[in-house]
Amino acid sequence: SRQSPPAEKSFANRGMTLEEDINESNDYYIARDIGIIHKKPTPVQIVDVHYPKRSAARITEAYFKQASTTDYNGVFAGRYIDFEAKETRNKTAFPLQNFHDHQAEHMHKVQKQDGIAFVLLRFTVHGETYLYDASRFLHWYYGQSKRKSIPYKELQEHGHPIPLGLHPRLDYLKTVKDVYFH
Amino acid sequence: SRQSPPAEKSFANRGMTLEEDINESNDYYIARDIGIIHKKPTPVQIVDVHYPKRSAARITEAYFKQASTTDYNGVFAGRYIDFEAKETRNKTAFPLQNFHDHQAEHMHKVQKQDGIAFVLLRFTVHGETYLYDASRFLHWYYGQSKRKSIPYKELQEHGHPIPLGLHPRLDYLKTVKDVYFH
Ligand SMILES: [Mg+2]
Ligand SMILES: [Mg+2]
Repeated sequence: SRQSPPAEKSFANRGMTLEEDINESNDYYIARDIGIIHKKPTPVQIVDVHYPKRSAARITEAYFKQASTTDYNGVFAGRYIDFEAKETRNKTAFPLQNFHDHQAEHMHKVQKQDGIAFVLLRFTVHGETYLYDASRFLHWYYGQSKRKSIPYKELQEHGHPIPLGLHPRLDYLKTVKDVYFH
Repeated sequence: SRQSPPAEKSFANRGMTLEEDINESNDYYIARDIGIIHKKPTPVQIVDVHYPKRSAARITEAYFKQASTTDYNGVFAGRYIDFEAKETRNKTAFPLQNFHDHQAEHMHKVQKQDGIAFVLLRFTVHGETYLYDASRFLHWYYGQSKRKSIPYKELQEHGHPIPLGLHPRLDYLKTVKDVYFH
């Protein structure tokens, strides 16, 4: 089905900080063979393509599609890693309306295959980013029928805060190691 | 960098058989929680988007980008799975010109993280599809400077043939299990 463009695009002037932090950290991890995590390309439904002579094919009509999975996946120390990342300007709860059923179902299926699934949630006003395991996330996602959200207090209690650094900017694989590797 | 469209697109009338077989098999695996493998979206560089009132955002200028990873990845029984799939009409060797350095490097990095990396290679004329481990693939890929290809005989000897079935059409995860899980 045709979708609104990803939120990141329509708020480009806001800074895209969490995604930038993750991408920079992923580059850092890949360059050092710490972990191989990539953001998946934005899914696009291509309707029309022009093939001019002597130059690159040009897509002239296409639409944003809803993603059927989360945005990020890869491998870290033999384990499959899968996550979605979002920011909010809300102070008291993390709204879930930008998560989709397909993504929730995908995370659940990943866990059944013994993969590691979580969300990275940033409260921009508090300046805090949490790793929050998919099991707890799915509890909130499926437990509410509308105006879904996760209380800030719940994330403070059961999320794992990821400190901001210089390089990598968001060392979330260190948090993954602390939480999932014993 | 701007790229030619993926080979699948420009030869759409040829049938896209291997990709279709894999996608159908992935749907089968996902529906039964056998494994969670997805094809990544085609990477597209979006240059211009129109936002008409009361209808979906329309991408009016975009270009195909070279993929920085392989096309398929996911998780199977706790292991990270990563592969690229290609077909050839050649009978005596599998040409490698449609593989890119980024993909080769990516497979090597996946192996260093203890992920499972391979290619699925189909000889359409012979009607044969092989799972071929990334280590051997990379040997051929990096061992030749031009007109790179893998001899058919090498694939017969060291590839793992995947029989075609009805449902799933290409049970490559069974082959993965035989080859990588002991
Ligand atoms: Mg997303
Ligand atoms: Mg490809």
